[in-house]
Amino acid sequence: MSKDCIFCKIIKGEIPSAKIYEDDKILAFLDINPIKPGHTLVIPKVHRSDLLAAENQDLVELIKIIKRIAPAAVAGVGADGFNVGLNDGSAAGQIVFHLHFHIIPRFKDDNLKLWSGRPYEAGAAEIVAEKIKKQL
Amino acid sequence: MSKDCIFCKIIKGEIPSAKIYEDDKILAFLDINPIKPGHTLVIPKVHRSDLLAAENQDLVELIKIIKRIAPAAVAGVGADGFNVGLNDGSAAGQIVFHLHFHIIPRFKDDNLKLWSGRPYEAGAAEIVAEKIKKQL
Repeated sequence: MSKDCIFCKIIKGEIPSAKIYEDDKILAFLDINPIKPGHTLVIPKVHRSDLLAAENQDLVELIKIIKRIAPAAVAGVGADGFNVGLNDGSAAGQIVFHLHFHIIPRFKDDNLKLWSGRPYEAGAAEIVAEKIKKQL
Repeated sequence: MSKDCIFCKIIKGEIPSAKIYEDDKILAFLDINPIKPGHTLVIPKVHRSDLLAAENQDLVELIKIIKRIAPAAVAGVGADGFNVGLNDGSAAGQIVFHLHFHIIPRFKDDNLKLWSGRPYEAGAAEIVAEKIKKQL
């Protein structure tokens, strides 16, 4: 537990939440500012600031529960698909520094657009790939 | 392997890719239309159409490798954070129906905006939560 962490307070019940799922390691609850109805956050009960601070075992528990909750969220709100997302670091939009995955139900023609990409210039992908492989 | 799957062809080497990581179960390679440089796809070698079609063990292997590759991608391109994303179903923007997670390096002030949400009306969150819990 981290004293000033809003998600730790939700886990302890000091701040209310609309809970979806709970076991001894994981809590899932509705995001209070949903992008679409049924937008769910899945978090470890142990305080980890982000993905990189998590133990592999935390992630194993999380991903299994995400797989279980996602279709329930889709069915519960009558959606057609879903996104799973994680924002790591403030540059990526992380606001609460307690590891959390978003499950966002999606509806056909719901007017949410994914970011678009564009191709690398010739030879650039191979250079980038080498730079990343050196960091592994 | 699925005969007409572009990612299965990448796994088999029939289509080239800028590979980042490979073991007997997982392949990671650069997205050819990166949202930001170093945008990496992490896939299971076994053909699974999406998250819901995956075995838990597939997901366990994937999430461990995502945790390893994400900081390497960030360091390799000099980024400040990263997003992890998965699109499940065409309504959610899934185009290739072979399970894949996106790792997208993010830079301070890189002009990508996350979708924004807004609060539920009073009492609505509890109703939505109940509908989802019934599907679990």
